[in-house]
Amino acid sequence: MKNLGKILFTFVVSLALVEPAIAAESTVNAETQYVFNTFLFLVCGFLVMFMAPGFAMLECGLVTSRSVSTIAAKNIGLYSIAGIMFWLVGYNLAYGIPEGGYIGSFAPWSDGSKIDTGYADSSDWWFQMVFCATTASIVSGTLAERIKIWPFFLFVVLLTGILYPIEMGWQWGGGWLASLGFSDFAGSTLVHAAGGAAALAGAIVLGPRVGRFSGKQLVPFANSSIPLATIGVFILWFGWFGFNGGSQLAIGTFDDATAVAKIFINTNLAAAGGVMTCALITRLIGGKTDVVQMLNGALGGLVAITAEPLAPVPFTAILIGGIGGVIVVAGSMLLVKLKIDDVVGAIPVHMFAGIWGTLAVPLTNADTNFGAQLIGVLSINVFMFAASFVIWTILKSTIGIRVSDEAQRKGTDVAETGVVAYSIRD
Amino acid sequence: MKNLGKILFTFVVSLALVEPAIAAESTVNAETQYVFNTFLFLVCGFLVMFMAPGFAMLECGLVTSRSVSTIAAKNIGLYSIAGIMFWLVGYNLAYGIPEGGYIGSFAPWSDGSKIDTGYADSSDWWFQMVFCATTASIVSGTLAERIKIWPFFLFVVLLTGILYPIEMGWQWGGGWLASLGFSDFAGSTLVHAAGGAAALAGAIVLGPRVGRFSGKQLVPFANSSIPLATIGVFILWFGWFGFNGGSQLAIGTFDDATAVAKIFINTNLAAAGGVMTCALITRLIGGKTDVVQMLNGALGGLVAITAEPLAPVPFTAILIGGIGGVIVVAGSMLLVKLKIDDVVGAIPVHMFAGIWGTLAVPLTNADTNFGAQLIGVLSINVFMFAASFVIWTILKSTIGIRVSDEAQRKGTDVAETGVVAYSIRD
Amino acid sequence: MKNLGKILFTFVVSLALVEPAIAAESTVNAETQYVFNTFLFLVCGFLVMFMAPGFAMLECGLVTSRSVSTIAAKNIGLYSIAGIMFWLVGYNLAYGIPEGGYIGSFAPWSDGSKIDTGYADSSDWWFQMVFCATTASIVSGTLAERIKIWPFFLFVVLLTGILYPIEMGWQWGGGWLASLGFSDFAGSTLVHAAGGAAALAGAIVLGPRVGRFSGKQLVPFANSSIPLATIGVFILWFGWFGFNGGSQLAIGTFDDATAVAKIFINTNLAAAGGVMTCALITRLIGGKTDVVQMLNGALGGLVAITAEPLAPVPFTAILIGGIGGVIVVAGSMLLVKLKIDDVVGAIPVHMFAGIWGTLAVPLTNADTNFGAQLIGVLSINVFMFAASFVIWTILKSTIGIRVSDEAQRKGTDVAETGVVAYSIRD
Repeated sequence: MKNLGKILFTFVVSLALVEPAIAAESTVNAETQYVFNTFLFLVCGFLVMFMAPGFAMLECGLVTSRSVSTIAAKNIGLYSIAGIMFWLVGYNLAYGIPEGGYIGSFAPWSDGSKIDTGYADSSDWWFQMVFCATTASIVSGTLAERIKIWPFFLFVVLLTGILYPIEMGWQWGGGWLASLGFSDFAGSTLVHAAGGAAALAGAIVLGPRVGRFSGKQLVPFANSSIPLATIGVFILWFGWFGFNGGSQLAIGTFDDATAVAKIFINTNLAAAGGVMTCALITRLIGGKTDVVQMLNGALGGLVAITAEPLAPVPFTAILIGGIGGVIVVAGSMLLVKLKIDDVVGAIPVHMFAGIWGTLAVPLTNADTNFGAQLIGVLSINVFMFAASFVIWTILKSTIGIRVSDEAQRKGTDVAETGVVAYSIRD
Repeated sequence: MKNLGKILFTFVVSLALVEPAIAAESTVNAETQYVFNTFLFLVCGFLVMFMAPGFAMLECGLVTSRSVSTIAAKNIGLYSIAGIMFWLVGYNLAYGIPEGGYIGSFAPWSDGSKIDTGYADSSDWWFQMVFCATTASIVSGTLAERIKIWPFFLFVVLLTGILYPIEMGWQWGGGWLASLGFSDFAGSTLVHAAGGAAALAGAIVLGPRVGRFSGKQLVPFANSSIPLATIGVFILWFGWFGFNGGSQLAIGTFDDATAVAKIFINTNLAAAGGVMTCALITRLIGGKTDVVQMLNGALGGLVAITAEPLAPVPFTAILIGGIGGVIVVAGSMLLVKLKIDDVVGAIPVHMFAGIWGTLAVPLTNADTNFGAQLIGVLSINVFMFAASFVIWTILKSTIGIRVSDEAQRKGTDVAETGVVAYSIRD
Repeated sequence: MKNLGKILFTFVVSLALVEPAIAAESTVNAETQYVFNTFLFLVCGFLVMFMAPGFAMLECGLVTSRSVSTIAAKNIGLYSIAGIMFWLVGYNLAYGIPEGGYIGSFAPWSDGSKIDTGYADSSDWWFQMVFCATTASIVSGTLAERIKIWPFFLFVVLLTGILYPIEMGWQWGGGWLASLGFSDFAGSTLVHAAGGAAALAGAIVLGPRVGRFSGKQLVPFANSSIPLATIGVFILWFGWFGFNGGSQLAIGTFDDATAVAKIFINTNLAAAGGVMTCALITRLIGGKTDVVQMLNGALGGLVAITAEPLAPVPFTAILIGGIGGVIVVAGSMLLVKLKIDDVVGAIPVHMFAGIWGTLAVPLTNADTNFGAQLIGVLSINVFMFAASFVIWTILKSTIGIRVSDEAQRKGTDVAETGVVAYSIRD
């Protein structure tokens, strides 16, 4: 398996100039390092926290104008639930895992900071929590315009309290995937593909929006606001420096500071690659430079580089991101063919590009192997898809998850929030 | 008084597990601490500065579409005035106060940084200035859609140059409230209730928007854009990490870094509590999940935790924020009953939840007492309300403060800025 | 020349109290300084990166509603191209310049961090790249609503890969302007006027939007969304703390930290000065408080202080920014007279206020002289204008740069992106 992967990507691997790691002893005082690392988590954490409104704006912008206040309510709600659930059970479920194990303990987390742990416990909790919330944000967009608010919130309770912490603990908690040698720096698979897989299960159980497919044909639904989608993507891009940069977990030494800086560059260039690939593809194929695909291309590039934002040289980062962009465009077409209604394109962006990025890690990081990457990708995606599918099905057959067709036609906002999103008279 | 308060809250106090403070000597070099602390003020200051557009977007989103460019002008103007006035007189008025005194000196501030003061004077000025600006932002939303721009600016000149610095100096300048043992970590009362009290006085003097009340009935006015209100609240939430985190005033040691990290978590969880309480209440009472109340619930939770974001354990933080959310919903109903027209709900959010948060401090911080909290809350709210009432009344009876009923019907934008806010043709 | 300048500004110079520089030896460990400086570049860099959506929102808000998705596509595209080109050739072209020279070498940059260089190479690259991208953002707004996407992208390739790096290297790369004693702290001229000059050349070659001028009269075109323009400007203001603060290039010592803090204050106050000047002028002249001019006034103030945000005392910063605001209003009128169609007012804001700020440096910084400032301003503006003019002319006469009049009337979005920007039904 390992060799197969190596061969498959030989044409790319030549581009990857893996730089040697420097392991100099640091001269920085331990308490100073503790402050630096804590500060890094706080700053990177608030950047990732800001991805919540990034997702909210992207989704508000891409849905039709009659489902906007509902998607706003879902986004602020899911971020709130994630915080509460990750405190109540999530963190311990992920980090209270035995070495090489499968699940941690159910207990609320509490701070036990010491200088020699290298950072404040609370700052780590904060940084990990916003990752958990991101996973839930991904699900929200796919299911927009037809899911009821409260069943969605119930799913988020389980996703952020149980599902995400379990699979995340497999790797970052030191569970069985970490023992196996799986590598996913900041979560192309652990966060993005995982969220995408949960969304895919939901989209299948929930079905498409009423009127979305007519025979084999896709019926175009107008986006409510492209500028809101644009600021959403830019905010996500901005937040991603925290997402990937903070995942170095330390900045208090020469080595760590230098690493975080490299991560910033690669993260940025991968997004740039995704944008320009999508601009070129849509211009060449359809004659128009499709701004929505450019926006999703940025995200595809970002998701792709997230599994390994440190090892690649800049050119490889552009390439990895660019391929992420291609995958977004191709993946969107595939979903239309399968009549899966992913309102904002979150499945190609987060799941497909996330899988690509994770499998591409051995191209630039010599300490990894394709076999472990494949096992990681499969186990996490299958677990998240299956568990989510079961939960969505139970919710569907009990309390119901779908807004009635008639209410959809009037707009989910009337039925769900009772608040009209836009009232603009000029 | 002190005992009364303790008894009143006995049922809650049991939840509050106050953790002991660690007073270890720091090993971090003094100049390094100076750099850390200055950096903290700069970073937290830019987060709080960003609350200015947060308020601007919240207000642009919640007013009707014909008063949007006016509210935008007021928001960028008030932030500008706050900076100028806080430099010209405000800072010295607050910090040039004699120990235990009532008012400082009128003189422009200048930088006199020394390593042993622990941070750059300018960074402290910067951090305090953005707090001052926040106070003014709070007033803006309540009075929207019917106040003239320039009388509002004149009020802001006095608010940010004189009123806020006076009451703020009572506590943070080491004045009489500090001597009394009053405790308000980041300003639930000093900033938020103070701004809310100034807004309340303005709302009473100014009167409701034309057509807002018909007999005893509230006439619904459509919000121009829920997504703009949503990004506004998320930006405020984002900025609040600076607001509360920076109020630790230092991050250069183990103790301080650990404290700032705890503050981040509590701040986040209180907001989450406020959101979910409002979601539940509005769903259970009215059948719809009211997104506007969820947004204001986040702010109510944030305001409530601001008086003491360090001492509570996470569960208590959720509870304090959750009660903040209840207060926002109940407070909004109360204002409607009193026919006070608070366009964005700033009075319940900032004044009522701010009072709650300040009175709740003794529940989690054993070094405080309810009596001092009550005196602080009363003195600041009465001072701000009374002084503002006088100023608003003088402005009303001289230059006039109210946009004519006819101009209100056409939209304040036509009368005030001459710029139509939205021109959208699809 | 030097004396002429001194005399010309004598009335202002009296206000400028230049403070003496302190040159104390730092006690901060070298590696700790390295971490601090790298951290500064990363944080300030993400703030400047965020200026990209700031420009995007400002431009989305100020164009008519039928050219919004095109301007969004251009903004995310130009930021992407800037990153790629600055890596491919730009950085080395700027910094690979011989001392006192005119041009650097063409080669992709690579990281070579050492502790004694004071910061991670990658963090510096990152910080410089976002400056390069800002230059391109400036051009975008002026040419909105009539330029084709791909010719614009081609121009951006040359601007960010060649033009900007050449002139920037003259000063910040240690080229001939630096040898001459030219001073431009964070780029009033190197970034802002340079971008404005490229935009001016483009506006002349491209011509005004169809129907913009009727005889000598300006035909008003409605802005699509004032709140989007407002958040755009606030984001730019927010990002500017990174722009100017990071240009201190270090924060790891008492002196540097104190300097960055002073820069924050002056940056903020200059913007405030610009806002209030424009508010007053438009109110006094036209009777209305023009919010669009207030927004541009903030930017004019920010651009003006960028050449020297450290030396001025706060009052002088307000004054420099306030004059920047006057220049924005006057400059806009001048362009209308000349029938140059600058859709968002980027030329007065970035070029005219940038020139003012650069020429004003000797008023507050005694180490500079007016002659060198004038030579720097002239050489950079002439170079950027001339080179851009040639490129725009070649593009025009080969592939064409202008959207047809008929397509403009339907809206550029139909022709260029095929995506309608707003679809709002209430």
